[in-house]
Amino acid sequence: MSLPKVVAASLISTFSLIVATTALPSRAAEGMWTFDNPPLKKMQKELGWSPDPAWLTHAMHASARLAFGCSGSFVSPGGLVLTNHHCAAECVEQISTAKANYMQAGFLAHDAAEEQRCPAMEVNRLESITDVSAAMKRATQGLSGEAFTHAKDAATAKLSSECAAKDGVETRCDVVDLYHGGQYHLYRYHRFQDVRLVFVPEQASAFFGGDPDNFNFPRYDLDMALLRVYENGKPAPVKDFFPVNPTGPAAGEAVFTAGHPGSTQRGYTLARLAYLRDYRLPEQLVRLSEYRGLLTRYRATSEENARVAAAELFFTENSIKVLRGEREALVDTRLFGALQADETALQKFVAASPSLRKSTAKSWQEISAAVQTAHEIGEAMEQFEGASAFNNHYFEFARTLVRASTELAKPEADRLREFSDARLPEVESALFSTAPVYPEFEKIKLGWSLTKMREELGASDPIVHQILGNDSPQQVADRLVNQTTLGDLAARKQLWKDSGAIARSNDAFIKLALQIDAASRAVRNQYETRVSSIIDRNNQQIAAARFAMLGTGMYPDATFTLRLSYGQVEGWKERGVAVPPFTDFAGAFAHATGSEPYELPASWLAAKDRIALNKPLNFSSSNDIIGGNSGSPVINRAGQLIGLIFDGNIHSLGGAFGFDGSSNRAVSVDSAALLEALTQIYHAPELAREMRARDAAQASNP
Amino acid sequence: MSLPKVVAASLISTFSLIVATTALPSRAAEGMWTFDNPPLKKMQKELGWSPDPAWLTHAMHASARLAFGCSGSFVSPGGLVLTNHHCAAECVEQISTAKANYMQAGFLAHDAAEEQRCPAMEVNRLESITDVSAAMKRATQGLSGEAFTHAKDAATAKLSSECAAKDGVETRCDVVDLYHGGQYHLYRYHRFQDVRLVFVPEQASAFFGGDPDNFNFPRYDLDMALLRVYENGKPAPVKDFFPVNPTGPAAGEAVFTAGHPGSTQRGYTLARLAYLRDYRLPEQLVRLSEYRGLLTRYRATSEENARVAAAELFFTENSIKVLRGEREALVDTRLFGALQADETALQKFVAASPSLRKSTAKSWQEISAAVQTAHEIGEAMEQFEGASAFNNHYFEFARTLVRASTELAKPEADRLREFSDARLPEVESALFSTAPVYPEFEKIKLGWSLTKMREELGASDPIVHQILGNDSPQQVADRLVNQTTLGDLAARKQLWKDSGAIARSNDAFIKLALQIDAASRAVRNQYETRVSSIIDRNNQQIAAARFAMLGTGMYPDATFTLRLSYGQVEGWKERGVAVPPFTDFAGAFAHATGSEPYELPASWLAAKDRIALNKPLNFSSSNDIIGGNSGSPVINRAGQLIGLIFDGNIHSLGGAFGFDGSSNRAVSVDSAALLEALTQIYHAPELAREMRARDAAQASNP
Repeated sequence: MSLPKVVAASLISTFSLIVATTALPSRAAEGMWTFDNPPLKKMQKELGWSPDPAWLTHAMHASARLAFGCSGSFVSPGGLVLTNHHCAAECVEQISTAKANYMQAGFLAHDAAEEQRCPAMEVNRLESITDVSAAMKRATQGLSGEAFTHAKDAATAKLSSECAAKDGVETRCDVVDLYHGGQYHLYRYHRFQDVRLVFVPEQASAFFGGDPDNFNFPRYDLDMALLRVYENGKPAPVKDFFPVNPTGPAAGEAVFTAGHPGSTQRGYTLARLAYLRDYRLPEQLVRLSEYRGLLTRYRATSEENARVAAAELFFTENSIKVLRGEREALVDTRLFGALQADETALQKFVAASPSLRKSTAKSWQEISAAVQTAHEIGEAMEQFEGASAFNNHYFEFARTLVRASTELAKPEADRLREFSDARLPEVESALFSTAPVYPEFEKIKLGWSLTKMREELGASDPIVHQILGNDSPQQVADRLVNQTTLGDLAARKQLWKDSGAIARSNDAFIKLALQIDAASRAVRNQYETRVSSIIDRNNQQIAAARFAMLGTGMYPDATFTLRLSYGQVEGWKERGVAVPPFTDFAGAFAHATGSEPYELPASWLAAKDRIALNKPLNFSSSNDIIGGNSGSPVINRAGQLIGLIFDGNIHSLGGAFGFDGSSNRAVSVDSAALLEALTQIYHAPELAREMRARDAAQASNP
Repeated sequence: MSLPKVVAASLISTFSLIVATTALPSRAAEGMWTFDNPPLKKMQKELGWSPDPAWLTHAMHASARLAFGCSGSFVSPGGLVLTNHHCAAECVEQISTAKANYMQAGFLAHDAAEEQRCPAMEVNRLESITDVSAAMKRATQGLSGEAFTHAKDAATAKLSSECAAKDGVETRCDVVDLYHGGQYHLYRYHRFQDVRLVFVPEQASAFFGGDPDNFNFPRYDLDMALLRVYENGKPAPVKDFFPVNPTGPAAGEAVFTAGHPGSTQRGYTLARLAYLRDYRLPEQLVRLSEYRGLLTRYRATSEENARVAAAELFFTENSIKVLRGEREALVDTRLFGALQADETALQKFVAASPSLRKSTAKSWQEISAAVQTAHEIGEAMEQFEGASAFNNHYFEFARTLVRASTELAKPEADRLREFSDARLPEVESALFSTAPVYPEFEKIKLGWSLTKMREELGASDPIVHQILGNDSPQQVADRLVNQTTLGDLAARKQLWKDSGAIARSNDAFIKLALQIDAASRAVRNQYETRVSSIIDRNNQQIAAARFAMLGTGMYPDATFTLRLSYGQVEGWKERGVAVPPFTDFAGAFAHATGSEPYELPASWLAAKDRIALNKPLNFSSSNDIIGGNSGSPVINRAGQLIGLIFDGNIHSLGGAFGFDGSSNRAVSVDSAALLEALTQIYHAPELAREMRARDAAQASNP
């Protein structure tokens, strides 16, 4: 399942979006609810139960966000964090070496000393939510274009900094734009920056079925990873956690998720969705598919290449599936028609009110014009400022160093938003990661992306010409990588916040980043003035109109912030045939062919006689989730962990634009399987013991 | 520019399709006219001139078709054939070796003895056109489903065989479906099967600017090749040919093309176009892009790999550009709206006539339902019967051998259509090609395509499971290639038409082809019964209605048969900026960076002082062309060759669905450049002399 695609946001549609196609009676629970606005009445009505404030606070504090784009949860008082294997894969690769390939072999720390630090991993725990809408709206009142964007960024930076300053470096504060400018909330997180790997199974087990089975069901995956957060060199004690239920849920049981859906576009205007459907998604698919082919061939040429490029290929293939699913949802005229009806209803409501008509009647048209502008100038924005021309770690380092050297000298309100104080720790964490960089692989990635840059913008584009001169893209890439020392952490540290050192540097990537900085900033400024600020401002108007029409009893589009979803354990009908909600260990053995990606690891084959083969392995449920929810806990009313979300079915991908309760399903590892595998396959009974719910009375509650 | 995409056909729209957007006054000549129905009145009115029957017959006989998908022309009485480098590239690769890389170095035969036979090349010359509509329509009268398809195939085979039998093996006859079932014409060709390579420049010159410049303009390409047809071991004398004009055309001059546009879909119903737009094109783009990435990486790993995969990569990249252009044309709501208006007008016309209403009113709906069926069952059709699961030369051989062994024992009317007598020489030519097959490359291609098969149909599809068993796609591919001898021509000859030998064969590909034959035929039968036959039958109805509404003064969609187009030498406006119609040799030197794909070969650099740098190199003209027109002669009224079509601009790709005279341009090598390059760069004055127009009075005629 996908890491979140971080796409700019906009405004949530009516709940009834897909109602015409929804077949489920009671618990088909559309909605990714914020923890400060849960649908208590609706839950009470549909489940005969709703959470009390203590339940909500506890669940919030026992949930975790993996800063780079996944979810997780605390599962023991000793700071043990449960998430997916694929969410920990980057760490697993980074601590692997040519000799010890933990992706292939799995990893188990037998004691604290063996728990290995993940170079670039950070875990956040949401501590509080504060409404700052008034301050944010005051800041941008009456402004447009560049002034609007600048004011919004400045206010965001100020609120975040003031919040984070309270606790120093261990706190992170984000101003979150909800309902596409309808509300702004301040999310305050406790940060855990020392995160260590405790356990992962072999990838063959975590990702059994591979790309062919990804986003499909039935599944047989043990897509789990155990991490542990440390503070001051010791396991961090935590008060709130979800004990792991040893039997898992029953069919039909009401289940809850507390996770971080990355991004949905249910509130996009039609013009933006049509642009996604007709241009953006097809173009991204073409680009990623070519990259996939390249990586596939690269991996096939040696075992070392296979190891080095594994995560990149997984990420690419996963993204392709997501984008395919989204594109197919948008060409479905039934869905698009429903969205159109929605938009038309809101436009009629606006037209009927003199004041809304004045403020908002032209908003759709203005967004549509901005989308047309995006179509014209978006490619340069993506290539240079989005850095897709430079698909390369060295360039990421160089750009950060070059920009930090000037941005950090400015007052916070004047900086580029990614250099606000609140986001600095994140910047430093990426810059000072100890993850290895592989020069030969980086050359290939960069040579390819520079070729794409030339293809998209043409050889005679002035910035393209400035970068390539008379050389071929691969020649330029090879030269740059040969003439950089940014792969060394020490070299990066030397250049950090030192504009003199930057100016004197002979590093090829530093020189490149300096050389194109002005042009790239200009492209960004154009884009923000002519596109983003116009969309943002008009979205605020539309959001206000929608609140006026529908009230505030709705959920905002996903924003990679903590959301509550409720549903039930259930299957669905695929072309008229019922898909049952559970798979078991026996099914895994039955589907194992012995060759990749259907090859069970030796540990499973050896343990076959010990495993209770009829124990549930994976299940599907009707929770409303999306990429970013990977690693989310599935919990019962008693606050016990009964599952671990690791995927959605293929229909869940359309969830970006609307929730179809009849077929949209989340896919989880059953909690019974987590404990069974640790105990019977991986010889880690002590970990199972640490996680297991102690109170037998806390059994799951169908 | 593309080889023709051979896609099934349907019915031509009104001429006025894009009239609303057409800016050109007089000679914006939409239309790919058959030589038996040229728009003489229209030409007379617009050009003040129209061709007489002798001119048309001469042009028809001086034009050539390269059987695998290009155009060409005879340019000397000694059987010299002019076409594009990219049309001869397959031959050039096939006669190249690890030691002599003619793609890179170019090729020049200094005398007849050095002219090298192209293993798989065939040149056809159109001799006559006969209307067989009555016989064809009689054969299918009142039939539907499988019976319709069978009757159509049987009638086609009978007419073709009777026609070809007159002259034996050197004649080819095709029944051509024009206007999507509106008319059927019998095209009779003289076949030249001994085709030899005389000259190609270096690919760096032929494809200067490479993929980035492909389908763009200005261009600086010498995309030419000279072949010679032989009969009885000697150069074949030809009566009709186009002498090459040494000065080329003037701006604004009326110019004519006689070439073989492969396929257009201007007459498709909206339902079929929407399916192309929303599913078929995006899916093909994703597939080809992944293949592109794979080939790109494969080529980068060694010089030998680069040589082996060059043509495959070119073909793939070219197809991607074509499909991208087509997709973008179809998401243009202006074009789609115009097509919709067209269809609505015809539907109204049908509704107003009681007899048409009875025969045709439901035709659009029936086609729409068939398209939906194609969406459901098309993937299996494409994978197995279309063989995209088996992207591999050995499988092509094996399927031909396996099927020929049973098909050729049947009466012609009962055979699969590709085994009709008329098409047998084509089948044999492909099967007995002496082109080398590279086992390691074939393994990679096949491993990949089997992986895609599993991805598209799922591991549990019964045919997929039958093919893969418990092995990985790459294991299966490696084993198959290791256990075949079909790379040897002798092995293929032994199995030809010998069903006993086929049954006894232990060849892995023969066994595979046998193993899946029944299932694959069943898939095809399903598809033809439920999709193709329904579309064909309803297209006939719609075609008749359109003739009733508009008369017969219109041109049919492209069918890779000879067409006349007229236009003028002219540029266009790109985002408001005028693009001039000519480039010159000086421009080539100005754009040469020294690195691929903007690297001029050493021969050019050495000849720079000898070349008249202000001589025209390429030009654009408003002729209505499409993929398959590659290599078409551009001629003047005097019947002299003044240019060689090798590409269209990016707007020409939308020509698949409608012609926009304001921007759709053909791109040619100027005839002056052909002679200048042969004389000054390639030291081949004797070839230039053989081609050059002798009569100075036959100067071009603006």
